[in-house]
Amino acid sequence: MSDALALKMRQLGLDAVNAAEQLAQATPVQKNRALEFAALDLRSCTNQILSENTADISEAVARGLANALLDRLKLDATRIEAMARGLEEITQLADPIGTILAQWTRPNGLVIQRIRVPLGVIGIIYESRPNVTADAGALCLKSGNAVILRGGSESMRSNAAIHACLVRGLRAAGLPEACIALVPTTDRAAVGIMLGQMGEFIDVIVPRGGKSLVARVQAEARVPVIGHLEGICHVYVDGDADLTMAKNIVLNAKMRRTGICGAAEALLVDRAVLANLTALIKMLLEAGVEVRADAEGCQVDSRVLRATEEDWSTEYLDAIISVRVVAGVDGAIAHIKRYGSAHTESIVTENNATAEKFLSRVDSAIVLHNASTQFADGGEFGMGGEIGISTDKFHARGPVGVEQLTSYKYVVRGEGQIRD
Amino acid sequence: MSDALALKMRQLGLDAVNAAEQLAQATPVQKNRALEFAALDLRSCTNQILSENTADISEAVARGLANALLDRLKLDATRIEAMARGLEEITQLADPIGTILAQWTRPNGLVIQRIRVPLGVIGIIYESRPNVTADAGALCLKSGNAVILRGGSESMRSNAAIHACLVRGLRAAGLPEACIALVPTTDRAAVGIMLGQMGEFIDVIVPRGGKSLVARVQAEARVPVIGHLEGICHVYVDGDADLTMAKNIVLNAKMRRTGICGAAEALLVDRAVLANLTALIKMLLEAGVEVRADAEGCQVDSRVLRATEEDWSTEYLDAIISVRVVAGVDGAIAHIKRYGSAHTESIVTENNATAEKFLSRVDSAIVLHNASTQFADGGEFGMGGEIGISTDKFHARGPVGVEQLTSYKYVVRGEGQIRD
Repeated sequence: MSDALALKMRQLGLDAVNAAEQLAQATPVQKNRALEFAALDLRSCTNQILSENTADISEAVARGLANALLDRLKLDATRIEAMARGLEEITQLADPIGTILAQWTRPNGLVIQRIRVPLGVIGIIYESRPNVTADAGALCLKSGNAVILRGGSESMRSNAAIHACLVRGLRAAGLPEACIALVPTTDRAAVGIMLGQMGEFIDVIVPRGGKSLVARVQAEARVPVIGHLEGICHVYVDGDADLTMAKNIVLNAKMRRTGICGAAEALLVDRAVLANLTALIKMLLEAGVEVRADAEGCQVDSRVLRATEEDWSTEYLDAIISVRVVAGVDGAIAHIKRYGSAHTESIVTENNATAEKFLSRVDSAIVLHNASTQFADGGEFGMGGEIGISTDKFHARGPVGVEQLTSYKYVVRGEGQIRD
Repeated sequence: MSDALALKMRQLGLDAVNAAEQLAQATPVQKNRALEFAALDLRSCTNQILSENTADISEAVARGLANALLDRLKLDATRIEAMARGLEEITQLADPIGTILAQWTRPNGLVIQRIRVPLGVIGIIYESRPNVTADAGALCLKSGNAVILRGGSESMRSNAAIHACLVRGLRAAGLPEACIALVPTTDRAAVGIMLGQMGEFIDVIVPRGGKSLVARVQAEARVPVIGHLEGICHVYVDGDADLTMAKNIVLNAKMRRTGICGAAEALLVDRAVLANLTALIKMLLEAGVEVRADAEGCQVDSRVLRATEEDWSTEYLDAIISVRVVAGVDGAIAHIKRYGSAHTESIVTENNATAEKFLSRVDSAIVLHNASTQFADGGEFGMGGEIGISTDKFHARGPVGVEQLTSYKYVVRGEGQIRD
């Protein structure tokens, strides 16, 4: 059984490599045609997709899947329309492939170009969120990469129905069907094979999901990984902050959506203006946020809980925030260095010199001045869709959109030059 | 003992992380001052370095080190002067850190910048070539990275003497000495610790050396690796080639230096003009090259040996070349796909359409038209020094210079924006 699966996975890998080779030569028009057709097909197959999704849901309910997970798994006509529109939006992005990133001429007359090319074959491992099948498949296609999708087993039927639409799009555009492959089994061993045995076929693995999924992938993968572990995002309210702005930003950063990686998990307040501490904590409590603070924060209100050491490095993904008083921007930088996850941090201040210090010294993928951490998002950055936010420094950092799913090559044109 | 070593290595890692944090904020002037002072110091310590090198050599001879390795280990005044000049050349490169790679404004007024930052801490593992201590240390410093150098044990005394000069340069510039660390032991277990246990301190490992070193690093490393395994470089002489140009390029690509990764290992000749095959083989034989060819090539001259299947994928790094007749550019592309190592390939042709097909379809880090493969070199590309040629597609591809040793961050400036 395991041997049969390994063999099947290798065939999937080989087909993907061959498809990637053709896809690297595809025109922007051809790739967009596949996406446009797939979008139409998603719409016309809405009922069929919903019926497969209902079957997934029934089984998941019977197996006792948690409500939060059921919510992510569940599709409706609106969500399918959003997927279709997502594909259409990706057609509007500039095609990254073939872009000349740099060009220069050497003294000996050689003309050197650095040209964007696809990475090759991308493996995406995700949880039971069927919309990722469409999003991730489309982003990989746009960036000229073949993709092997492996979604959570609870969403297998929904994924297969969505995948069929993508495949019909590829066929309509004259592109190999293997450009977007879906691992056709719920056998969990397939993930281990992708991570450990398919290095000759897969150029990079993208885990898309929670901490435990990403950690497993990073621990087991024998191929490069683009992943992020956690978003322990901080807002630092400086003594020179405008309090009204600070309140808006803190509330939005924490509460707009609590479950995304760009949600703030910690508030740092400058000791210089302790009145800000009081105002911010009162506001958070009134908004229904559980506040876990240091000794000074606890004095503000009896509803404030005492934070433990563990709180400073906890990604709550919930209506909970840790609050700490720090000694100015240097104190904030030191706290973030010690407890942060190098994802996204914001400073609120009217003092530009203080802001520049924070922006320069804080070594996170995204640093903001006077703006909410919830802007940590490829769409908000104007990069179109994204496959995630990378907290790595290697290859891609921050939002991973179509450009970040590429590599480059050097094209050198001469007239017979030889080297001395 | 092993525990003591692990502890010592962790301390080295921790010191490097702290040094990297300061180095990321250093000015271009400060980094260049360290390099300039180190260059002067290398010159004034020439005798001392040579005496340490003599001790290394004596021990290596006693241990029966091969001549080729002894040659790489051996220093003389000229080589030390070349190292010093190398450092001075690196001061002339543009400082990559802080460069604004892109900047745009969102409809909501947020101004987003993508800014180049260092990777952090780089681990370099190399063979017994003392000049790498200076080159690699300087490239990492220029790119704002702390570095942990681990050279071959036979060169320990030479490396330590060179490293002392670099450290005095750092001190003179007011930079932490831990910016450039040398693993202070010949215990081979240190390499295993760097690869497997220092992920929290080291951001990327660069193996610099032969195939077996790179393969070991890629197999064992638990951190990202920038490496290249082999340069099986091809020259394809098209039917539309200028024969004189083709002869010059083939001879240079093979023979200028046979031991570098950009040396050609295989010659592909278009079946359309078999006269080229004869002329090229005769020329190679006269130049003292051992020719291993397919059946057609063997008919050209009795000195030609019959190539085996293994020859097509062998990196000789010697005055040996494999020669094969192919069916035009498509045949060449197919051969390179099957046997190449995605390093560097060149086409010789006067037909631009054929050249463009080759340049587009061959998926190698460097593809050339009418130029020698020996141009595969960071210096020849105008990138200043390099730490190697990457055949990976992830992060850095082709010559790895100071820019390729960096990452980026996003700096976002707002006026109180929150997300809808």
